[in-house]
Amino acid sequence: MSVVPEFEAANAKYAAHFTKEKAALPMPPGRKVAVLACMDARLDPARALGLEEGDAHVIRNAGGRALDAVRSLIVSQQLLGTREIVIVHHTDCGMLTFTDDVLRAKIRQDLGKNADGLAFLPFSDVRQSVVDDVKLLEENELLLDVPITGYIYDVKNGQIKKVS
Amino acid sequence: MSVVPEFEAANAKYAAHFTKEKAALPMPPGRKVAVLACMDARLDPARALGLEEGDAHVIRNAGGRALDAVRSLIVSQQLLGTREIVIVHHTDCGMLTFTDDVLRAKIRQDLGKNADGLAFLPFSDVRQSVVDDVKLLEENELLLDVPITGYIYDVKNGQIKKVS
Repeated sequence: MSVVPEFEAANAKYAAHFTKEKAALPMPPGRKVAVLACMDARLDPARALGLEEGDAHVIRNAGGRALDAVRSLIVSQQLLGTREIVIVHHTDCGMLTFTDDVLRAKIRQDLGKNADGLAFLPFSDVRQSVVDDVKLLEENELLLDVPITGYIYDVKNGQIKKVS
Repeated sequence: MSVVPEFEAANAKYAAHFTKEKAALPMPPGRKVAVLACMDARLDPARALGLEEGDAHVIRNAGGRALDAVRSLIVSQQLLGTREIVIVHHTDCGMLTFTDDVLRAKIRQDLGKNADGLAFLPFSDVRQSVVDDVKLLEENELLLDVPITGYIYDVKNGQIKKVS
């Protein structure tokens, strides 16, 4: 039932068509942008935004939350020269379906463990979560003053809409 | 110079070919797996592992480090039913090129700010970083006892090699 054999077979096909141009790509992202997006399975940032290998850093986590991404964004800017950030949250996000208290109670009941010290960063409004995360990054003193654009991706039609 | 017009144009093309099947995808990943990979621009986990929209959660950060991913993995397992984890670090990773002290000194010099409280999670051996991150997830009590496979992706040929 493991995905491992399928992943390895798919990778063999991918590597078989790996080009000299891909092999020669430098470490810094060619388009000097870091994309911060949700981990959601329905969202493929590369396909949805037209990214090829070498173009952009892509940071993803549950919700596409900025707090989790600060370490990565500092590395991206300070060591690898990105000078723009694009945030992509999306409709029908799992983060809209629970609260910290609900998830902590589930973990207590199902695993018998205490997760009270963990903030899972859910939200109740996807537009507001984008606004909040743009603001969090703008106000972080360890990040450069770069353009930050926030979008909501619609999982029903594949379209991004600018929020801020 | 912003990527925004290009991203929006690429997205319009993507959305124009969005299928009914994609629009109907459910929130839980169909292949019940969470992929944890580095944010590196040269690595596209979807293309390199054969992922289609709807297949897998994809969590990415600087280095593909486990510590940053625990929150997301708990959400992935507890709320969205994933039951396997695949970690992908890679050759020529930016995380191999610095230490916390070096990056903190750069931030002090370039930005005049103190980042001494931040751990950037660099590493000096990519095989060891995979081993360490598999172990960190295996030992985390808030995560389920699921199969965890660790790979190194070679940016020079597109191949993944299993580490553990």
